[in-house]
This record gives sequence, C-alpha cells and structure tokens, in this order.
Amino acid sequence: MKYILDEIIENNRKYTSEGNVATYIPELAKGNRDDLGVCVIDMENNTYKSGDYDRKFTIQSVSKPISLALAIMDNGKENVFSKVGMEPSGDPFNSIMKLETVKPSIPYNPMINAGAIVITSMIKGKDNDEKLDRMLNFFRRLSCNPTLEVNKDVYMSEKITGDRNRAIAYLLKSEGIIDGDIEGILDLYFKQCAIEVTVEDLARMGANLASYGIDISNGERIVSEDIARTVKTFMVTCGMYDASGEFAINVGIPSKSGVGGGIMCSVPKKLGIGVFGPSLDKKGNSVAGIRVLKDISRRASLSIF
Amino acid sequence: MKYILDEIIENNRKYTSEGNVATYIPELAKGNRDDLGVCVIDMENNTYKSGDYDRKFTIQSVSKPISLALAIMDNGKENVFSKVGMEPSGDPFNSIMKLETVKPSIPYNPMINAGAIVITSMIKGKDNDEKLDRMLNFFRRLSCNPTLEVNKDVYMSEKITGDRNRAIAYLLKSEGIIDGDIEGILDLYFKQCAIEVTVEDLARMGANLASYGIDISNGERIVSEDIARTVKTFMVTCGMYDASGEFAINVGIPSKSGVGGGIMCSVPKKLGIGVFGPSLDKKGNSVAGIRVLKDISRRASLSIF
Amino acid sequence: MKYILDEIIENNRKYTSEGNVATYIPELAKGNRDDLGVCVIDMENNTYKSGDYDRKFTIQSVSKPISLALAIMDNGKENVFSKVGMEPSGDPFNSIMKLETVKPSIPYNPMINAGAIVITSMIKGKDNDEKLDRMLNFFRRLSCNPTLEVNKDVYMSEKITGDRNRAIAYLLKSEGIIDGDIEGILDLYFKQCAIEVTVEDLARMGANLASYGIDISNGERIVSEDIARTVKTFMVTCGMYDASGEFAINVGIPSKSGVGGGIMCSVPKKLGIGVFGPSLDKKGNSVAGIRVLKDISRRASLSIF
Amino acid sequence: MKYILDEIIENNRKYTSEGNVATYIPELAKGNRDDLGVCVIDMENNTYKSGDYDRKFTIQSVSKPISLALAIMDNGKENVFSKVGMEPSGDPFNSIMKLETVKPSIPYNPMINAGAIVITSMIKGKDNDEKLDRMLNFFRRLSCNPTLEVNKDVYMSEKITGDRNRAIAYLLKSEGIIDGDIEGILDLYFKQCAIEVTVEDLARMGANLASYGIDISNGERIVSEDIARTVKTFMVTCGMYDASGEFAINVGIPSKSGVGGGIMCSVPKKLGIGVFGPSLDKKGNSVAGIRVLKDISRRASLSIF
Repeated sequence: MKYILDEIIENNRKYTSEGNVATYIPELAKGNRDDLGVCVIDMENNTYKSGDYDRKFTIQSVSKPISLALAIMDNGKENVFSKVGMEPSGDPFNSIMKLETVKPSIPYNPMINAGAIVITSMIKGKDNDEKLDRMLNFFRRLSCNPTLEVNKDVYMSEKITGDRNRAIAYLLKSEGIIDGDIEGILDLYFKQCAIEVTVEDLARMGANLASYGIDISNGERIVSEDIARTVKTFMVTCGMYDASGEFAINVGIPSKSGVGGGIMCSVPKKLGIGVFGPSLDKKGNSVAGIRVLKDISRRASLSIF
Repeated sequence: MKYILDEIIENNRKYTSEGNVATYIPELAKGNRDDLGVCVIDMENNTYKSGDYDRKFTIQSVSKPISLALAIMDNGKENVFSKVGMEPSGDPFNSIMKLETVKPSIPYNPMINAGAIVITSMIKGKDNDEKLDRMLNFFRRLSCNPTLEVNKDVYMSEKITGDRNRAIAYLLKSEGIIDGDIEGILDLYFKQCAIEVTVEDLARMGANLASYGIDISNGERIVSEDIARTVKTFMVTCGMYDASGEFAINVGIPSKSGVGGGIMCSVPKKLGIGVFGPSLDKKGNSVAGIRVLKDISRRASLSIF
Repeated sequence: MKYILDEIIENNRKYTSEGNVATYIPELAKGNRDDLGVCVIDMENNTYKSGDYDRKFTIQSVSKPISLALAIMDNGKENVFSKVGMEPSGDPFNSIMKLETVKPSIPYNPMINAGAIVITSMIKGKDNDEKLDRMLNFFRRLSCNPTLEVNKDVYMSEKITGDRNRAIAYLLKSEGIIDGDIEGILDLYFKQCAIEVTVEDLARMGANLASYGIDISNGERIVSEDIARTVKTFMVTCGMYDASGEFAINVGIPSKSGVGGGIMCSVPKKLGIGVFGPSLDKKGNSVAGIRVLKDISRRASLSIF
Repeated sequence: MKYILDEIIENNRKYTSEGNVATYIPELAKGNRDDLGVCVIDMENNTYKSGDYDRKFTIQSVSKPISLALAIMDNGKENVFSKVGMEPSGDPFNSIMKLETVKPSIPYNPMINAGAIVITSMIKGKDNDEKLDRMLNFFRRLSCNPTLEVNKDVYMSEKITGDRNRAIAYLLKSEGIIDGDIEGILDLYFKQCAIEVTVEDLARMGANLASYGIDISNGERIVSEDIARTVKTFMVTCGMYDASGEFAINVGIPSKSGVGGGIMCSVPKKLGIGVFGPSLDKKGNSVAGIRVLKDISRRASLSIF
C-alpha cells in the first residue's frame, strides 16, 4: 500500500502547477503550491502515509460535516433539518441567491456557507468559550488527536476579510433562521474553519465515519450509525462544492474538501483517507488531490456506486 | 384649489382601509391607518393643504432622491454612477439577488436599498457627526424648514431591526462597492430614513425640484438643473418601488414614496406635492395616497407623458 | 433647424465606428455601419431631415409600442394588462428567467420580447392574413405612409433564426398566457418586426403620439389620449432596453429603439423624431443615434424631467 | 423475503392517500391512486413480488438514466458530457432558469428535462424510426423483456401538452446545444417517456445495473462497468427530483422515480428493486413508494453510505 501511494503521489505532483493556492484569505496565500500529501487508514487501524504528509493546514470547509455531526448530537436530526435543508444547491458555496428566491429561505444544505453558519449557531454551550471548547473536543475525539488547536493567524485573517459571510449571517438573521449575536456566531465559525490539522487527522476522522461512528482504534462509539451515514451522504451529494457530481462519477467516494487544500474521505466499511494539496482548481478543490483520489479509487475499486 | 383638494381627500379617505401601516419597524406600526393629508405648492409659492396635513411622519425612502442629490454635489455625477447604476431593477426594494447574478455587482439604482446605502456612504464629512450635520442641513435647505430633526425612537427601531440592510451592506463591502465601518454607514442611513417631516416639507422639496433646483421662495439656486433633472428621472423610473411603471401610466408625475406613508412629487415647472397616508398596499406605497395623486393628476392634467 | 441637424449629424457620425450592426439575424448583418440619419417633425407638421434620411430599414422593436396601441384598441386596457405587466424588468430584452421566478408568470412589460409576443397574439382578425392586414394598416395610418410593407427577406431570416422567441412563446403557452397556434403567432410577430420604414415614418409616428393621438397633418384622432400617454410612458421606462434609465437621465425623451438601428421619439406637445444608425452598442441601441438625440435634447431643452 | 415485502406493502398502503396521481398529462390522471406494488430481484436472479405488481404504467423519467446509458454507448462519455453537465441543480426538474443565468448554458445534468432532451437527441439512427427502434431494443435488452412498447395514448397526451418541453428544446437549440428538427426530437422523447413497464421490468433493469452491467440471468455484458456506475451515481445525486438529498439520507439507494409512479432502484452488488405507486407527493415522487423503499433499506441494511 505504501508503495502504491508513493507512486500515485509521484505521478500526480505535476498537476499542482495547474491550480493556485487560495488568496481570498491573506494567510492562506502563504501556502506552498507544490505540496501534496496523503494518509490512508483501514478498518484495522493500519496507517499509510506518503508525500508531504507532515504539513499542518487549516481545515476550512472540511469542518462542515464534523460540526454537522455535533449539531445533530446536540439538537436532534429533526431540529437541525428544520433550519437547514438536505438538497444539493447547484450554486457556488458562498451564494446568497437562493435564500431570496426559494421559500422557506432556509439554506439548501449544511455544506454551503449559509448552512454551515446555521449549523455552527446550533452548537450548545453557555457562552462562546464553552461552545468552542465543546467543538474542539469533538474534533479531537473524532480525529483521536487531543492536540488540535485553532490557528490564530488564519482565524484573524478570516475574521477581517469575512464580510460575505457577515452578509449571509445577517440575511439569515433577518429571515429568522438564526438568532443572537451575529459577530459571536461568526467568531465561532471562523475559529472552526481555522482548526489546524494534518492528513492523518483527516484520514482518522474519515475512518471513524467509515466504521459508522465506532472509533477503530478502541471500538468505542463516537457518533451514532445514523449520524455517520447522514454525514457521508452530504459528502457525496455536496462535499466537493459545485464539482460534487463530477467527483462522484469519477471517484465515487464520500469526500469533503476545503480551500485550505485538504480533503477528508470516508469509504464505508473500508478506509479513511486524508489528502492535502493547497493548489486549487477554479471550483476550490485541490487540483492534484482530486487526481490522487481518482487513482486510489480505481486501483482499489473503492467507488460506492 | 383648496376646495378641490378637500373633495379629493374626502373621496379617497375610504381607501385607507384597503391597506395597513408598516409593521416591520415596530415604531412605524404605531401609525394611524386612517390618516390622509396633502399639500400642494405652485411655482408662485402658493401653498394649499387639506386633510391631516399637520401630521409628522418619518421620511423613510423619500429621503433617497434627496441624499442622491447631495452625494452628486459632493462627488460628481461620474463618481456616483461608477458605484450605482441608473436602471430600474424589476425586483423588490430590499432585494439582494442581482448583486450576485449580475456583474459588475453595483446596485441597479439609488432608489433600492442597496443603492441608497452606497449613496449615503458617499456623503462627505470628517466623521459621522459632520456627515449627519451636512445631510440634515441639506434636507432643511431643500425643504426650507430649519427645524427638521431625526426621530430618535424610529431611528433606534430601525437600527435594532435592520439586519437585512446589514446583510446588503456587508455584501456591498465584500464586493468592494463600499468601504469603511459598516455599522457607522448604516447608522447614518437609519438616521436619514428617520428624519421627521410633514406633507408641506415634502411639497416644498418637490416644488424646488420642479423649478429645476431654484428655491421658489427666494430665487436662490439650491442644486444644479442637471441634478434636479436626474433626481426627477429616478422618481419616474423607480420611485414607487416595483409599482413605478403602473404609477407612471396612471399618474405620470415624478414621485418617491416611503414606508412611513409619505410621497413627494415634483411636476416639472408646475408643482410640488406632498402626500401622507400610512396605510400601505402590498408594494409599500400609500394606498389612498396613490389615489389622491391620480385624481390631482387627472383634474389638473399633470402627466408628463 | 435643418442647419443644426446637419451639424449634429456631422459631429456624431464618427461614433458609428464604436458599435457594430446586428448579426444575430443574417439579413441585418448586411447593413451599412456608417449610416446615420435623422428626421424631426414639429406640431405644425414642419419636417426637417439630415444625413442618410432616405435609407429604408426594418422597424424591429420600434414596432412594440405601436402594436401595443393597436392591441389596447382591440381589447381594452384592462384585458391587455391582465396578460402583460407594466414594470421595467431590469433584465435583457430576450430574457426568460422572470417568467419562471416571479409569479404570476406574465411578462413584465410589453417592450421585452415575451411581452411583445403576447401583445401581437392579441391583435384581432379572423385569420393571420386579416391580422397582418389590420396591423399593417394601423402602422400605415400612424405613419401617414400607405406604402409600408414587410421586408420578406428579413422576415424569412427572422423566422429561420427565431428559436429563442419560439422558446419564449411555448413557455408562455405552457403557462396559459397565450393560446392557439404558436408558429402562426410568431409568424405575425416576425412580420411585424420586419416592416420596412424610414426615419420620416418614425418621426411622423412619434409626432402623432406627441400630439396625444391626433394626426398633426389633418387633425383626425388616430388613438385615444390615454393610449398615446400609455405608449409614451413605456417608451421612457423601458424603451431603450436595459439602458432605458441612463437614456432617461441623459436625454429625457420618450423613445423606442430597435436592432435595425432605428429610434422613434415622441416629445409631448412638441416633436416627433426618427433616427437611423445601424451601428449598435452592447445593449442593442444605435450608438451614434443616442448621441444625436442627446445633442438635439440639449440644444432644444426637450427633456420631460 | 416475500413475507417481508407483503408486510411492508400492507403497512405503507395507507400513505397512498397522502398524495395524488399526476394530472398535468391527462392520460396519467386516469391512474388508480391506491395502487402499490413492488418487485425485488437479487444477484442470483431470485425474484420476489408483492402488492399490485401486475400493473402496467408508463416509465416517464425513470427512462432518463437508461437513455443516458445508450447515449454514452453511442457517443462516448466525453461527447455526452460536453453537452450535459454532471451536477445536481437544486431547481425543479422542468426549470429553465439556469440555462439563462449560468454560462455555458448546458443543462446541469441528464436527469432534469433539459438534460434528458439533449440525451435523447444524441441517440443514433438514420431517422426517427430507427432511433426509436434502437431505443426500444435497448430498454428491452436491459429489462430482459422483449415485449416493451410505447403506450400510444400516453405518448399522444404528452405530445399535445408538452409546451414547456418545447420551450426548453427551442431554448437549447437557440443556444446551440441541440440541433436539427425540434419536433422530431421531442416526438422521440415523448415516446421514450411513454414506454410501458411493470415493477418487474424496473427491478430487472436495476439488478442488471447493480451487477455493473452484466445480465444477471445469463452473465452477458449489456453495458460497461463505467456506464453502469455513472448511471447509478446520477440516480443518487439527482434521481428523486429535488428530494434527492433527503432520499439519499433516509434510504441511501441509487433510485430514479417518474411521475407515472414508478421507481427503479439499484443496490450495487446486491439487488434491483421496482416500485409502483402513482400517488405522488409535491415533489413528484411516489409517496408510498418512498416509504416502501425506506423500510426495505432499513430491514436489509441497503444504504450505500
């Protein structure tokens, strides 16, 4: 397995030149475009890594399915999906339009920014500090990595440049979808996006979802089977921005990408995979990372379809 | 003239029951639905009033053409229209959609909220206090009423409930159309909307625009002919929200309405008219006020078309 | 007057090079980009011409306000405006979108293609031949030119390439806005657009509308005052495609343009103007023609605002 | 298995009263709202039926993934997906809007009407008769039922009432996405939708896709593994109209529904399922059929997520 991963990384590193690191958040623009790394963990907890697997990067949108799981645990499925829909939207991740044209104006799904902000607003805690603690602890639990922390520079960078997310949040408030202090909710959301991870962290979270919520390292249940399934479904229908359909056809693995360059994958009953490649294509997905996953999927016949 | 106005008010007061006072701002909901008043001023400064002409109400969107005039005086026509368009939008006044779907994402015109917020952001002053002073002074000058003031209760009410305008403003900032402190800009905008007026104030502003910017009481120029013309044009193409086209056909007078129940009209070379009737139709226009204007227009053949 | 027109044509002919003749209909692409002509007729029937005033061209969208007048005469204002709205749309002339997103799905106004097709479908006649006869006769009557005919080559060219209009028409039928044989309705519409005129024809139609429907050559009433007013109102709010607002500010004359290069103008109580310049800007208006009208308006203070 | 199916049908038949048969095509309105039937076929070709499994009904949108498979065989994946996208749209199945607002204007995916019409237009044949023959033969081959035929009454009913599809087709032609005789293409499309099937036909097609394209009755390959996978992917991301996301979460089986009341399901490596229940919910899916599938999926742990 390690040998195959090395070969796949080697074959695909050249594609990093076809994209660019994200620049809309100044801190992200500092990423190294050539980086490419992968980690694979199977249900027996065997761990394989290759390439630039030791890089730390911010989780960004890969956090969305994870905070969704926590919000469902905190509020129940019915409550959560009374405020966020379950359907792919066909629009860019930061779109506002459907909030205006489609009634009721709840966000289409928890993977677009509007939906993810609603989800973050539902995480419980007596104040923002407690909410952040609970969120961080849940990310640490699912990744089996008690050292996960928020990258303060990236968090500040997101906070300063987050006016589009502010617009979305105030619109949601004016429509009665979220409530309370908007700047506080956004603060938590920006911190969530700025949690720092490695490909191993992503692979382990993917593996624990692949095992339907059981920690593969010790057999303890972290989330319910139903939540694990729900999360993986969203990763297929809207995990790769508006390239989710094409990715499902070509790769066929539940996956969630982020503009930090990370992709978390969960192959039910088989594998968790983490990929990092900060050079992004026009839709915001890791350009070489997608190719790495396509090769892994074909070699190991991992498509769920 | 006075007799005709009395008759028209009497005939149309019954229609106030077909609408309702605005409720989205709690303070506005306190208005008296049955009120209906009018003031007409001709180019010889003759002033005629009828009905509930003594009521004070907040100017709301009627302020938009006035602040536009000031913004053009402060920045020049070219600068202003590099940041706001000149076209009717076909969408509701508080719509966000076209900012996303049409590029460049400048607001369609200065009469929708998005455009009006940009206009307010362009009013000059070293700080918000000076900007407010300059704005108030200009409104006082055009209405020949040095006592105009902001209604603090309505202002506070707008500020507290203004999340949709916040959403619009942050979206404009994220698109680079406005700059600086959003809450400060909105504060000025909410104060502008909360300036308290009577129908006579509106009629006088309309009369001074009808005279192409000359103060009809003393012959002094307040704004240039070109600005007066520009303002009246917007009052025709987008002055009555998304009922502007129908109003132009049925009444044919440059007019701007506000959810406070006021309508300011300017018949070029002939009259200024102010109407107040806080009972609004579904599009946000004074339901009896529109009928009053239709009757005045027909009786006096005032349509510009 | 003649001298002034000569000077204005001469000054603006150079701007023809800034645009291009329409190419979406093959026959239109044969136009001469450098052509520029004008005709002005006052209420005393004095007629002034300059430039390429002798060119024949197809009327295209300039026919829309004329067929609207006939449809109102045939069906009454209420019937007509139960199937077409009165509001500017803010979208391009051939847009389909609002038919889907805004309910009820009647076209926004009679100046966009969707609305104009509905209007044409309402012209009375026992069959298409009679409808065409009645339409042609009305155009001849309003232009005082009994020789107006359909240009068969342009008509055929429009018919062959009119798939977008077919899409619009079938959508209107599926929504229950129009009824009957779609290809027959479109046939009449394509013929209407292919009526061949000169600038004098346009100026005379504009003059007869400027006189509120009275034939200025003989004092006979052609259309009612209300219809003449209604038509001129649409010419202001949506006569110049999605540049209507800017044109109203800069020129301020009720005007309707067509992709054939013609513009018909009607200055209430004063003038009718016809302009021809087939070199179009990006919005579909005659690029030099707009400048000619701006100069005429400023020289003679013709803005209605 | 038979016993479980009987129980599931019995438990869910009451939900047929929560929906209604489709009425937009007059022939469909004749369906019996109470009908509910199911057929399940496993990879060993064991066939289980229950309820109203003997009803014949028209395939409608369930034909879309099948004709997609044939179009890919005829033209190659690359050609097909240069004219139709791979992404869920978030809009209703018969929406036109995105063809206008998103460029290039190719339909979002082959499961919405716009995409399906493009797919049908790509089926090869020297004339429409040959195309229909080839299409029918392919449907017969995949369902192992050589008696499949077009229901002429439903076909005529669709043809007469198909104006919205005509609008879509002409818009696609005007954008250069399809070519040739629109009425001919639509004729083939309406016939495709009117092919008459039973739940066993649907189950068998689903089973042969579940086996990655191998005829489970005789081991012969019908379509390539890649095509079978591609088809199943679309069934997940956009198979159940704009309830696809919710269905994926609650049921988790690649499925395609039609307004005739049928649903075809394909559980990779396990089962084909056909369901029939013409009582539809607001999104156009069989209201009791969805519940039957949910029960089967839970009892047998069939979710792919």
